Formats: sequence, structure tokens, C-alpha cells
Amino acid sequence: MPRSSFDDMTCSIARTLDVLGEWWTPLVLRDIFAGVTRFDAIHENLGISRKVLAQRLNALVEHDVLQRVAYQYRPTRYDYRLTDRGADLAMVLLAMQSWGDRWIFGTDREPVVIRHGECGALTKPELTCAECGEPLTAAGITALPGPGFVTGRGSAGVGATHDAD
Amino acid sequence: MPRSSFDDMTCSIARTLDVLGEWWTPLVLRDIFAGVTRFDAIHENLGISRKVLAQRLNALVEHDVLQRVAYQYRPTRYDYRLTDRGADLAMVLLAMQSWGDRWIFGTDREPVVIRHGECGALTKPELTCAECGEPLTAAGITALPGPGFVTGRGSAGVGATHDAD
Repeated sequence: MPRSSFDDMTCSIARTLDVLGEWWTPLVLRDIFAGVTRFDAIHENLGISRKVLAQRLNALVEHDVLQRVAYQYRPTRYDYRLTDRGADLAMVLLAMQSWGDRWIFGTDREPVVIRHGECGALTKPELTCAECGEPLTAAGITALPGPGFVTGRGSAGVGATHDAD
Repeated sequence: MPRSSFDDMTCSIARTLDVLGEWWTPLVLRDIFAGVTRFDAIHENLGISRKVLAQRLNALVEHDVLQRVAYQYRPTRYDYRLTDRGADLAMVLLAMQSWGDRWIFGTDREPVVIRHGECGALTKPELTCAECGEPLTAAGITALPGPGFVTGRGSAGVGATHDAD
């Protein structure tokens, strides 16, 4: 498994992936979130091979993360649009972006900042508890077996896992 | 680039990765977050090859995400512990876990649930605006060039990017 490097990109998501592994797909999604929705445009922006890009886009359509919408016929050309399921991946990409902002680029050197339309502020995303609203940290949470828990290979979540007793 | 599948694991993080690409590292980290901190234990839990696991752990130590702490001598054996930088990756893993909970397993079938120690509730993590506290969505945010913005390959963030003018 050869390892790609994204370390020539000024993008916190790319650099977070550089720490965590080889992985084009979130960058393809990131482009689509940013309005770069056509094959040639993504190909050009990312410098990804056409073959790999086609594979990644096909997989995302199969997984119901993206849908194809024709914008031209003869030859047919498609926009790739996020489904509801795909749009909800924003939270994963934003979490990666925040981590890279903090730990790779550092405060006041973020490549991209986020404006929250509702309140108008330049904001930072925080992962918070849906019940009390306070920020969640690894030390502050405990993972427990849920209703769909199955023992076996790779069964775990974030946080120290304890039996339900 | 051969693609691994994690679809035999009952873990939302693994299944989110199965959608998004091939990627062992977050699962190695997930195990360490869950208290599985020794080489043999991670090897056994994930079914990952010793060679690949050693590579991933070494990379995480190099990236200052993990540190080695000896727990035995002759031969020396190590615990892998999260640095502050590594502990902050919890937000990325929790975001993956939440997405998989919602879109792969579904409500009431989550493999793992999270208890928030501070308020005591079984909680769901939400990505919220640090300024106003409301949940962030892809449609509700705009990405703008930040202080560290550089044009060129792969420069973008989540949200529609606009020039700063």
C-alpha cells in the first residue's frame, strides 16, 4: 500500500489526512462541499488521476453519498451532488479541518475560516454534548455497548469501553 | 491501491471508513482511546498484520500523536499513549462514529453509545458553532480564505469558498 502525501496542500483537511493515512475520498467530498462538482474541475483541483477519481466518485454514488445530475447531453456530463447522507459528512470533514487548523497550521494561520450564516460570526466548530451543550473531550466520555453491540473483531468506540453491568 | 473492507466490524467508525476509503489508522487510534494500548492487543483486536500495525504506530509516534511508555524491560514492551495532540483527534473519531451511527446502523441500533461524565447523560455528539452554540450544517456555513490561505493545488475547506472581497 503506497502512501500518498498531501503535504504540499495548504488545507487542514489534507494535512490531517497526511497524519492519519492515505485517503483521497474526503478531499473529493471537500471539493464538492466547496462547489467544485464536476469531474474535470475536481481532477484539476486535486491533481488526482482520472482513474482514481472515477473510482472514488463511483463508490460514493454506490454508497448513496453523491448523486449524478446531468448538466449536458451528447456527450452526457454530470454534476455530483451531495445526498442528505452525504451532506451530513460535513461534520466529519469539519472535525478534520478543525484538528488540522489547531495542530498543523496553528491559531491565526488557518488556511480557511468558517462563517456561520445563522449568527454571522467567524466561528470554530466544537463537538458538544447534545444534552448539556458542553464540549466533549476524550477524557470526559465513556463508551458503553449500545443496542446494536456485537462482540468480535474490532468492536469498540471512542472512550474507555466498559461492560454494561 | 487495494481496498480493505471493514464491513464485518460492528463499529460505526469502521463502517464510516468503509464508505470513505481504506484506512487503518483511525481504528488503531480508536483502540488506544478505548484503552487497548499494547501492540499485541491491538493486533489481536483489529486483525491487522503486525507489519502494517508497526508502520501505523511508528507514523503516529513520528507525528506526535502517540508516545511510547515502557511497561516492561528485557524485552522492552511499550504502551502507546495519546499526546495532547492525539487526544484532540477524539473529535474526528466521534464525528465518524456519529455519522456511522446515523447513516449505517440507524437510531436505536448504535453499536456503542457515549456517556458524558459531566452531565451524566447518554449523549450524541453535535458539531456546534463555538460562538452561538447552534449546530453547524454544510448549508449553514461559508468557507472563506483564512490568514494562512495559499492558492494552488487542493486549497479549499468545507462550505462554498468565496474570495475575500
